[in-house]
Amino acid sequence: MKIIKYPVLTDIKYLLKRPLIDNETIKEKVLSIINEVKINDDKALVKFTRKFDGVVTTELMVTKNEINEAELKIDNRLKRAIEIAKDNIYKFHNSQISKIVKVEIEAGIKCWRKDIPIQKVGLYIPGGSSPLFSTLLMLGIPAKIAGCKEIIICTPPQKDAKIAPTILYVAKLLGIKNIFKVGGAQSIAAMAFGTNTVPKVDKIFGPGNQWVTTAKQIVNSYGVAIDMPAGPSEVLVIADDYANAKFVASDLLSQSEHGADSQVILISTSETLINSVKIEINNFTNKLTRKSIIEKSLKNSAIILVNNLEEAIDISNYYAPEHLILSVKNYNRIADKVISAGSVFLGNYSPESAGDYASGTNHTLPTNGFASAYSGISLDSFMKKITFQKLTKNGLSKIAFAIETMAEAEGLDAHKLAVTIRREKANG
Amino acid sequence: MKIIKYPVLTDIKYLLKRPLIDNETIKEKVLSIINEVKINDDKALVKFTRKFDGVVTTELMVTKNEINEAELKIDNRLKRAIEIAKDNIYKFHNSQISKIVKVEIEAGIKCWRKDIPIQKVGLYIPGGSSPLFSTLLMLGIPAKIAGCKEIIICTPPQKDAKIAPTILYVAKLLGIKNIFKVGGAQSIAAMAFGTNTVPKVDKIFGPGNQWVTTAKQIVNSYGVAIDMPAGPSEVLVIADDYANAKFVASDLLSQSEHGADSQVILISTSETLINSVKIEINNFTNKLTRKSIIEKSLKNSAIILVNNLEEAIDISNYYAPEHLILSVKNYNRIADKVISAGSVFLGNYSPESAGDYASGTNHTLPTNGFASAYSGISLDSFMKKITFQKLTKNGLSKIAFAIETMAEAEGLDAHKLAVTIRREKANG
Repeated sequence: MKIIKYPVLTDIKYLLKRPLIDNETIKEKVLSIINEVKINDDKALVKFTRKFDGVVTTELMVTKNEINEAELKIDNRLKRAIEIAKDNIYKFHNSQISKIVKVEIEAGIKCWRKDIPIQKVGLYIPGGSSPLFSTLLMLGIPAKIAGCKEIIICTPPQKDAKIAPTILYVAKLLGIKNIFKVGGAQSIAAMAFGTNTVPKVDKIFGPGNQWVTTAKQIVNSYGVAIDMPAGPSEVLVIADDYANAKFVASDLLSQSEHGADSQVILISTSETLINSVKIEINNFTNKLTRKSIIEKSLKNSAIILVNNLEEAIDISNYYAPEHLILSVKNYNRIADKVISAGSVFLGNYSPESAGDYASGTNHTLPTNGFASAYSGISLDSFMKKITFQKLTKNGLSKIAFAIETMAEAEGLDAHKLAVTIRREKANG
Repeated sequence: MKIIKYPVLTDIKYLLKRPLIDNETIKEKVLSIINEVKINDDKALVKFTRKFDGVVTTELMVTKNEINEAELKIDNRLKRAIEIAKDNIYKFHNSQISKIVKVEIEAGIKCWRKDIPIQKVGLYIPGGSSPLFSTLLMLGIPAKIAGCKEIIICTPPQKDAKIAPTILYVAKLLGIKNIFKVGGAQSIAAMAFGTNTVPKVDKIFGPGNQWVTTAKQIVNSYGVAIDMPAGPSEVLVIADDYANAKFVASDLLSQSEHGADSQVILISTSETLINSVKIEINNFTNKLTRKSIIEKSLKNSAIILVNNLEEAIDISNYYAPEHLILSVKNYNRIADKVISAGSVFLGNYSPESAGDYASGTNHTLPTNGFASAYSGISLDSFMKKITFQKLTKNGLSKIAFAIETMAEAEGLDAHKLAVTIRREKANG
């Protein structure tokens, strides 16, 4: 990890350059996969599953039997752990249900918004060698609370043509029955346009590799909604002398083990802490199974020494990290200054892992600086808000002057007419 | 308008096919405009303003003087009308402010979400021959309530190199000072990447022609947030015998006057009403200034006779109209069944014009069937929600088992480590 001492804020954009995501080079290939799925339907899915996953199967849908078998393979410890996570994620997302507030704009004019679940949603869950069942909890629970009518899962099969038992177990636990053994760009195309087996959905969720995220970007430009743009995972830790070097090192490492393109950043006011963290990172790394990934991602990463915590939070807001850990004494004071971040962890006992798995918050968050304009997944992501209005004769009469005058000024006669004839009828 | 009698729901997708939007043909041209702005900065803006707007100017920013002069040109009637609209839009969007709810997941684990304004937003306002100052009210008011730090406007100049006085007046009223005389794809590129004069923004809002909407789609695929995908405007009216044929005709016409590609649909249980509406449409059309546009858009449009209101709302939900007017006796009963729509208008005295201008709801809504997954503009569109969490030693200890077990099952050692070392420290 490179160490940067007392940088000026204007240099941060160069110093903290994110690993470049180059989707352009594979875009043509992804486009041709999408087009082939559109034309050849399930046949294309079978073909690409053979080609990319090395799995020969024409059975694209997971059977009831497979789901029941999977449950037997999950030990009770893991079942208990998943149950705890599920309860907490449920509790936090359930608290996000909003009530209808009918606003009386004036007597006779009422306006309100109503949340309606998006009817058909598709969840992409990375599978193969590293099945992320925790992501299924993070997407499936809010989809269920929202009341989405059709929830489907696409996930690539393992070499044995099966789906990881953990994914099938969580799907069963959440009551999601339609699971398809399709991954990659082909699964995104299938969910966007529908095939004979895979139903078309209104919105596609979930993380994936470059092929998946490029395909999501393309179908989004065709009008299919997606959760958010994707990029490599990242964490930024702000730490002062109150921080624990071991804790900070482990937080940086838990982000860096995600992938070689992950970026982890430590900003500290304390050179002593920085030195200790470096030592702890070295100590820990040697004991971790994903050592080689960690070593690569630490090369994209940086430690920054600053004069004070104001400088630290300024850099963080500029960078807009996916995860922000505030390992500082006065974390509330610094938390108040956060402007751009996906999810914020306060104090020494709120590691990112807590939010990744079981505290209740969602772990699907905006990366790559997208936190400046995007929010993480929440119940809202599975809903749309529809506005309603009811005007009485009197209500409309009160604002008729405004509508007629403005419509006329915009040259929209018929807009004016719709009010004029009602006003005349109401008054006559 | 074609008349369809008693269709089966499965045929609706063919019968109500929307006018095709073909952005592909201009995509290459838009891309080259975007690239030229990226390379040549303001020079490219000057060039394209000359080319597309026929205006030769190097002064891209509206001056204070121009704003003050514009105010003098607005008569008091229109000022009063705008004031009424502004107050109502303000009231409805201000009611959308959400309070922070700290959720205690378990003792020692608190999670919450906080709304933070998107810092820099760009509003595109169509100008030239038909300046839409009402759209500036609809975008500028929630941006101001949200507290966005930098709000800029891009709008194409008129032939005299000026911006319409109505737009400048509304901008002044809302306290928006940075207004740029740039339109088309070039303005979207400028806001997405920044030029010497036009600042880069985090999110771009506003309707526009095909060049603008294609440019928004392209910069969105580069990671710049946009409000929503675009398409031609549309209204669907469901009417029974309780409806007033004149009112219904005027509502259909006020949508059809928007553009030749607008689509208007009437679904009714009453053949008598349908016949009367047809007569009224003919009568009114001859008196309207935008007659030629109306005649074109009515060709994309349809009247559907159905057996009952259940069939009507099923068709509507399938179509997912931008605007839905329920001119039926039991509008509340039908309103409860709305699943996909941008904005819904209840009863005989709630015309679309009310929501377009002055009732308080937003008129920037999902078209083209996007209402199945997207919401219209609201205060939320100018905010992002950041999650926060604070765990105490005890709080973390309670869920440590779940996190460690799940991280292990996903093969993420360092995630587990971050909890293990804290748990051991807390217990020791």
